Amino acid sequence: MPDSPAAPAAPGSTALDPAVAARLKRDPHGLVPAVAQQFDTGEVLMMGWMDDEALHRTLTTGRCTYWSRSRSEYWVKGDTSGHLQLVKSVALDCDGDTLLVKVDQIGAACHTGDRTCFDAGELALGGSPHQ
Amino acid sequence: MPDSPAAPAAPGSTALDPAVAARLKRDPHGLVPAVAQQFDTGEVLMMGWMDDEALHRTLTTGRCTYWSRSRSEYWVKGDTSGHLQLVKSVALDCDGDTLLVKVDQIGAACHTGDRTCFDAGELALGGSPHQ
Repeated sequence: MPDSPAAPAAPGSTALDPAVAARLKRDPHGLVPAVAQQFDTGEVLMMGWMDDEALHRTLTTGRCTYWSRSRSEYWVKGDTSGHLQLVKSVALDCDGDTLLVKVDQIGAACHTGDRTCFDAGELALGGSPHQ
Repeated sequence: MPDSPAAPAAPGSTALDPAVAARLKRDPHGLVPAVAQQFDTGEVLMMGWMDDEALHRTLTTGRCTYWSRSRSEYWVKGDTSGHLQLVKSVALDCDGDTLLVKVDQIGAACHTGDRTCFDAGELALGGSPHQ
């Protein structure tokens, strides 16, 4: 299998444990959102997307691997930047459609250089409830 | 506007601050994933989906409001269960396609009664890297 197929892997076509694959509820593109959280501080770092193969690699290589929707390829977080995510644990939610990956984030998680992708984006609360 | 339209609100059709609406990158259904995190312990509680109107209500009412994809209606978390999410802060990520909502979760976040939707779903790490 090439490293960078043009589309996410079809369910059942990868070495992902079939018992795990059977629990995944994928979007129409075969993807599941994955929330990356710093394992010790609890910071939510970013959200990415995984297909079966990206999840398999994340579970077995110790490095968080996503499917890049913009580049249509697998993306080992930190391969270019050095800002690796070392995998501590992975959990699937109650209805099988979201992953929580606890990691040790080396350096910045965000491509802007911020520690997390949410650091610069706080929205104002308040105002009148919708009429 | 009825409380439970059959589809998410079209961008620009709600009272959401236009400056915020302009930053949102929605999926083809007009939705953005929203990660709910307990504000003090850092627990990632669940992930839901928001359209512009759900985000507006979340920002202005103090109670986390999602778009239910299964029921095609707005869903004020806790309205049925009493397990409210009181909104502490809301942040949009660097590319505008994910929300992080810090909340004070009353009771269990998960419909199973677990504190978080990820409590029962840990996956095994290890095995051979993909060949």
